[in-house]
Amino acid sequence: MNEKVFRDPVHNYINVNHEVIYDLINSKEFQRLRRVKQVPTTAITFHGAEHSRFTHCLGVYEIARRVTDIFDNKYADIWNPDESLLTMAAALLHDVGHGAYSHTFERLFDTDHEAYTQEIITSPETEINAILRRVSPDFPDKVASVINHTYPNKQVVQLISSQIDCDRMDYLLRDSYYSGVSYGQFDLTRILRVIRPVKDGIVFSASGMHAVEDYLVSRYQMYMQVYFHPASRSMEVLLQNLLKRAKVLYLSDSDYFKQTAPNLLPFFENKAELADYLALDDGVMNTYFQSWMSSEDDILSDLASRFINRKMFKSITFDSHSEKELNRLIELIQSIGFDPDYYTGIHVNFDLPYDIYRPEKTNPRTEINMIQKDGSIIELSNLSALVKTLTGTIFGDRRFYFPKEMLITDDLFSSVKESFMSHISNEHFKH
Amino acid sequence: MNEKVFRDPVHNYINVNHEVIYDLINSKEFQRLRRVKQVPTTAITFHGAEHSRFTHCLGVYEIARRVTDIFDNKYADIWNPDESLLTMAAALLHDVGHGAYSHTFERLFDTDHEAYTQEIITSPETEINAILRRVSPDFPDKVASVINHTYPNKQVVQLISSQIDCDRMDYLLRDSYYSGVSYGQFDLTRILRVIRPVKDGIVFSASGMHAVEDYLVSRYQMYMQVYFHPASRSMEVLLQNLLKRAKVLYLSDSDYFKQTAPNLLPFFENKAELADYLALDDGVMNTYFQSWMSSEDDILSDLASRFINRKMFKSITFDSHSEKELNRLIELIQSIGFDPDYYTGIHVNFDLPYDIYRPEKTNPRTEINMIQKDGSIIELSNLSALVKTLTGTIFGDRRFYFPKEMLITDDLFSSVKESFMSHISNEHFKH
Amino acid sequence: MNEKVFRDPVHNYINVNHEVIYDLINSKEFQRLRRVKQVPTTAITFHGAEHSRFTHCLGVYEIARRVTDIFDNKYADIWNPDESLLTMAAALLHDVGHGAYSHTFERLFDTDHEAYTQEIITSPETEINAILRRVSPDFPDKVASVINHTYPNKQVVQLISSQIDCDRMDYLLRDSYYSGVSYGQFDLTRILRVIRPVKDGIVFSASGMHAVEDYLVSRYQMYMQVYFHPASRSMEVLLQNLLKRAKVLYLSDSDYFKQTAPNLLPFFENKAELADYLALDDGVMNTYFQSWMSSEDDILSDLASRFINRKMFKSITFDSHSEKELNRLIELIQSIGFDPDYYTGIHVNFDLPYDIYRPEKTNPRTEINMIQKDGSIIELSNLSALVKTLTGTIFGDRRFYFPKEMLITDDLFSSVKESFMSHISNEHFKH
Amino acid sequence: MNEKVFRDPVHNYINVNHEVIYDLINSKEFQRLRRVKQVPTTAITFHGAEHSRFTHCLGVYEIARRVTDIFDNKYADIWNPDESLLTMAAALLHDVGHGAYSHTFERLFDTDHEAYTQEIITSPETEINAILRRVSPDFPDKVASVINHTYPNKQVVQLISSQIDCDRMDYLLRDSYYSGVSYGQFDLTRILRVIRPVKDGIVFSASGMHAVEDYLVSRYQMYMQVYFHPASRSMEVLLQNLLKRAKVLYLSDSDYFKQTAPNLLPFFENKAELADYLALDDGVMNTYFQSWMSSEDDILSDLASRFINRKMFKSITFDSHSEKELNRLIELIQSIGFDPDYYTGIHVNFDLPYDIYRPEKTNPRTEINMIQKDGSIIELSNLSALVKTLTGTIFGDRRFYFPKEMLITDDLFSSVKESFMSHISNEHFKH
Repeated sequence: MNEKVFRDPVHNYINVNHEVIYDLINSKEFQRLRRVKQVPTTAITFHGAEHSRFTHCLGVYEIARRVTDIFDNKYADIWNPDESLLTMAAALLHDVGHGAYSHTFERLFDTDHEAYTQEIITSPETEINAILRRVSPDFPDKVASVINHTYPNKQVVQLISSQIDCDRMDYLLRDSYYSGVSYGQFDLTRILRVIRPVKDGIVFSASGMHAVEDYLVSRYQMYMQVYFHPASRSMEVLLQNLLKRAKVLYLSDSDYFKQTAPNLLPFFENKAELADYLALDDGVMNTYFQSWMSSEDDILSDLASRFINRKMFKSITFDSHSEKELNRLIELIQSIGFDPDYYTGIHVNFDLPYDIYRPEKTNPRTEINMIQKDGSIIELSNLSALVKTLTGTIFGDRRFYFPKEMLITDDLFSSVKESFMSHISNEHFKH
Repeated sequence: MNEKVFRDPVHNYINVNHEVIYDLINSKEFQRLRRVKQVPTTAITFHGAEHSRFTHCLGVYEIARRVTDIFDNKYADIWNPDESLLTMAAALLHDVGHGAYSHTFERLFDTDHEAYTQEIITSPETEINAILRRVSPDFPDKVASVINHTYPNKQVVQLISSQIDCDRMDYLLRDSYYSGVSYGQFDLTRILRVIRPVKDGIVFSASGMHAVEDYLVSRYQMYMQVYFHPASRSMEVLLQNLLKRAKVLYLSDSDYFKQTAPNLLPFFENKAELADYLALDDGVMNTYFQSWMSSEDDILSDLASRFINRKMFKSITFDSHSEKELNRLIELIQSIGFDPDYYTGIHVNFDLPYDIYRPEKTNPRTEINMIQKDGSIIELSNLSALVKTLTGTIFGDRRFYFPKEMLITDDLFSSVKESFMSHISNEHFKH
Repeated sequence: MNEKVFRDPVHNYINVNHEVIYDLINSKEFQRLRRVKQVPTTAITFHGAEHSRFTHCLGVYEIARRVTDIFDNKYADIWNPDESLLTMAAALLHDVGHGAYSHTFERLFDTDHEAYTQEIITSPETEINAILRRVSPDFPDKVASVINHTYPNKQVVQLISSQIDCDRMDYLLRDSYYSGVSYGQFDLTRILRVIRPVKDGIVFSASGMHAVEDYLVSRYQMYMQVYFHPASRSMEVLLQNLLKRAKVLYLSDSDYFKQTAPNLLPFFENKAELADYLALDDGVMNTYFQSWMSSEDDILSDLASRFINRKMFKSITFDSHSEKELNRLIELIQSIGFDPDYYTGIHVNFDLPYDIYRPEKTNPRTEINMIQKDGSIIELSNLSALVKTLTGTIFGDRRFYFPKEMLITDDLFSSVKESFMSHISNEHFKH
Repeated sequence: MNEKVFRDPVHNYINVNHEVIYDLINSKEFQRLRRVKQVPTTAITFHGAEHSRFTHCLGVYEIARRVTDIFDNKYADIWNPDESLLTMAAALLHDVGHGAYSHTFERLFDTDHEAYTQEIITSPETEINAILRRVSPDFPDKVASVINHTYPNKQVVQLISSQIDCDRMDYLLRDSYYSGVSYGQFDLTRILRVIRPVKDGIVFSASGMHAVEDYLVSRYQMYMQVYFHPASRSMEVLLQNLLKRAKVLYLSDSDYFKQTAPNLLPFFENKAELADYLALDDGVMNTYFQSWMSSEDDILSDLASRFINRKMFKSITFDSHSEKELNRLIELIQSIGFDPDYYTGIHVNFDLPYDIYRPEKTNPRTEINMIQKDGSIIELSNLSALVKTLTGTIFGDRRFYFPKEMLITDDLFSSVKESFMSHISNEHFKH
């Protein structure tokens, strides 16, 4: 095939040399990712970050292409070039099952984007499956197994999913570029120079230690600064409460939802199939929410309005041991007419930036290994004091969300609200 | 007010120091712009360019803020600082009436986003109008008059709308950043250093001639390379044919559209009001198109499918004098079953990168004037040979669009298609 | 050889895969380029542009490496991979004969950096020659012939020297990066995608027309904005007058120069050999000038002081037909005690940004050719109206330099100076 | 004064609004900094980093200008605007006493660039002193006292010299830009938004914690990756040994040095005055070294040659407790004819990236304090786990340098060299 390219602001060009890859990109299931934002609630806070999962998936593919191109040329002794197309296809498709507002949606409707990814790849109904089968009858299953970590060759699996994989490398660079913060930038070119396959996985030359360290620090910073931003999480709380209200109302007035949110019905009734899932995207969901803004149910219409028009909840941090004490705040909120089921929420965000392999854990992490001049292997945190700090340490916070109205004291309820504010200091709950 | 900031990848920070501006940004009519892409069909070709009109409008505001801040501080003798808030508000709101796929939509439904902009600002029904009225009762009208060029102070008008205005400066930088092409980059900081108010408008110090020249060349390049890209225009042709089909079908089956596209009805019936217009956005329109993919009308469902799944028409250029000869191609297309009303299209794109003031024209352009050390004024093209070339010269092309199937000759219709291809050389129509 | 890399701010990494290239870089003649600034007088105006010819030469090599790597892989039918090392060596060494303040130095001492480049490559005395001979006995001569355009394969010659060659592409990007102006930036990656060898030279795919156009516009802008900056040229005039004075004084007091500028002696006496030339660099020259600051000759010491301490001459533009009239100014300058031989100067800078092949000219240019889908060739200016303007048109100006003191009128000579200033309007000479 | 600007690749523009600042920049003592590289030995490894102390000093000034501009406008209650010019002058001049290869030079000749900075500012002989005195008779002393930390207002002192000051912020950004590594980049704009004067110094809003954290991590990474690079330190060892040799030879042959290195004489004789110091710069020193390349002393000429032509020593790391064991290596080196006094060296580089205030220390550090919403102050490492790790922890390594020849075993001395190499594993000394 003549090389095709896509201009990309992060990687300059996405290069496609395999017809299979080109056709996968043009499949309807993949094009659908254009209608699903990569970080929909982050975009509310960092307005530049409106990019879709489509662009991210192309980026993951491109990094995989560059890595496997290097492996094909420099490490043919230990890397099987036949794995390259598989790696690229898995990179491209690893997120193909993501839907609108995935994380919140899954919690409310008990769906799983990873299961959908597997199904899109392996179901004979999809264009993607048909394209993959052109490579070989078992190719769809191989791609799916790479993505779910069961593929025997750990080199391939680790490129797609590990503590330093093509997915993470792209999203850090991309979310950083689009949000306009520099924290997520790291030296991809240098990492591509030091990444190497070994018999049972992927390692990095010890000379590139600082590039890998910098990647981990960037990842930590993006979580702290961007992904865990309190305002974005406010939108998630709002969305969660909105969908919770809709589910409750559906029980008594399914007709209303048949009319205003037809494609959600299978999910309300817990019998959604792949086609139902693929029919949802950001635009469809927002169209439903916009309809609900004129619902006769005050809570549904108000929450939909707040979500669509970005009237966010406010939040404070609290310590784990004082969670029960939040009831005092909840009572005050309720006392002036807000139903706490729908007008408060707790959002807990924690991240473990890096960890070594701990066989005793249920899902032990694949540690990052460095290879020295003499061929010996050494785990990263032994070489970097900074990484040592991040190792096994969980970072994040707990936040309690409530209506902004609680902080405005120039009305009837001023004494209630003053009582409310007396529990807060430096945006933290004190009890 | 405490300064508020929004992180922006193009301008680093958007700074807000007026409560009016902050409230305008938070109004529901302005937040709606998050759901309207800035360059929706360009995003199909340059996948990174998925940004919304919301981000662009913030950017135009920020440039206006920087300019008026400089004017307030350095040119208080000739610039009235009372005009600064007006300028910033007009900058922020200049595009607030844009809707989904504006250009195509307007052609099909005879609407006008500029008229909607005026209405959103002046109608007492909108949040925006209420916020503006807080400044003074006539403030909404003043803002509207700046945007429609009737405001008496030409300094303000030219900052919002001229051949080098805050709008154009932001969209070049922004579309360039998001699409990943460097062509639109120019030296905004330098332009901010040389921009100056004079009695009857805006001029630039002659010492900054090359920065202005570079801006015009960048603008020319963005049109040639990005905005006029044949693939993006293919999506516009597809969209136009799709909506044309819907309008025809509506005459015989309005029920179908009542169900699948409720918010389009007022437009089909030519009685849309402001609220109807504001209810439409990219997500709503795409949701309708996705419904139409299962229409019983083959043409509607096929065009909707092609649009949603990005199965684009192909195109060739043709010369103005050979337009009639295209009928030969149209006949061939029709002969194998494609209805040319819906499966072909002509897309003509021309731009006049720069022009001097020509009083004899209907809408004469405001020329770009440079001010010399001794205070004398000289029009830009007298100083720059490059600008001289661009002056009064129209650039662009004419393209004929048709189904990609016409170029695939391995089927029944191969002789028809070969005949079709014999009229094409280097992607140009030869007759 | 294990790949070696050099971190480079312009190209990210310089990659070296041939031991010959690595050894050339490490030769003493090449390392000497670290002590010769790329644009020494520009650095006086754009203080960031302090980079050396060493970095530029590495950059030219890197572009040549990328181009030949693409040619080796994609165009082996028409490109002989044996030419790749030759191309890279010529790219690396094309400027190796540059010395301190080359352009001014050559004018004063009648030397020629191109001749020195040839000699460094072909003289058996140099490390570079010895390294090149390791490839084959005739390799030095081949490299030299590429650089002086006599090598028979025009593909190679045009990559090193034509209107769009590796040299120009690097210096535009590099000088732009270091000076901090964006004008010199263009899309190198895109150009690398469309550059192709044909039988008798180098062409570019027509689809990349705008990238090539943008390169030419960038080149034009760098000349107008950076290279022709009046302040930098002031330093050249100062330097020229300083060296002119030294040459005159040498005739009567050679001992003084033996002591203060030993390595310049062979040049004063017009019998310099290669080793003499290689002994000079920016630091050595500046050391001499610093000595001269305490010379007993007032003119020599004053000019040296002005040059070292950056006390520049001022300038005005003038038209070709009014050059004679400048005598009026010269008389005024002389009347207050400045020797016009050393305190005035004319500096004429013109550039022809692009030209087609004109066989009637002495050194006809190699035009830039584009290749269309059907293989036909078309010269660039036929495709681009912007390039058409730049074609065959000379841009630049004529400047007359004089002491800044002429513009300060608060002293004895105020009436002379006012008379002087009456001939100037908007920094232009009016007669 | 009309604003003057200097184009700068790091800060875009350096803005000058005070005639005093403009004249300081144009003084001969300040212009001299153009001839002194910022990181001369780093430039050997990262070839792009050829920038001078001149550009860095302008950058420090520009950051100080931006900070004081903010303080003048936003914090006039607690910041005295009269301090702004003082702060800017101190920022501009803080490094004006730096000379060629400062760190090595000082060790060999027992000079002190900080003392020279004080002298340049306060000595009535300098242009800088005369310019400063125009502000007020005690202004030179005030500027000098800010730089040596004795000025009573700690706000000013901390802006110029603390763990997060204008100096460090510029050099990280600048050295990073010029070397082409991204590690030194941090979010200066955000830091400028959160920096605030308090009564007794400078603090940062707690909301900007991650920007300050990022700055400290960037600083750590630049030290580890760039400043401590083994190859750059090799040049320092070479230089040190070269000057050591010159000092020894001077005792017996002062005439040779009178002729080849006239401006070094006062330093050899330990009676240098300010004018002697100012007469030295990189170019002068390198000119001397180039003369020494033809010295009759083999060691002097060889070391000079190695330094000028970049024939570096190699190195290995070693642990503090095994330093004595290095004698085994030294003996082997000596056994094949290298004088270990001049052909080996130890280079120890350690940095303490951040520390809290420890009153018991001799030079306790000023800790970085954050200010919370309620006005309370909290030291940074209490808010950031990453900073906590860096606090009080020293990072770096010890290296032993030796001739590269020791690693080449294909000669007479192969058994000695093999014995030498048997003590090395992964570039570390094992004993």
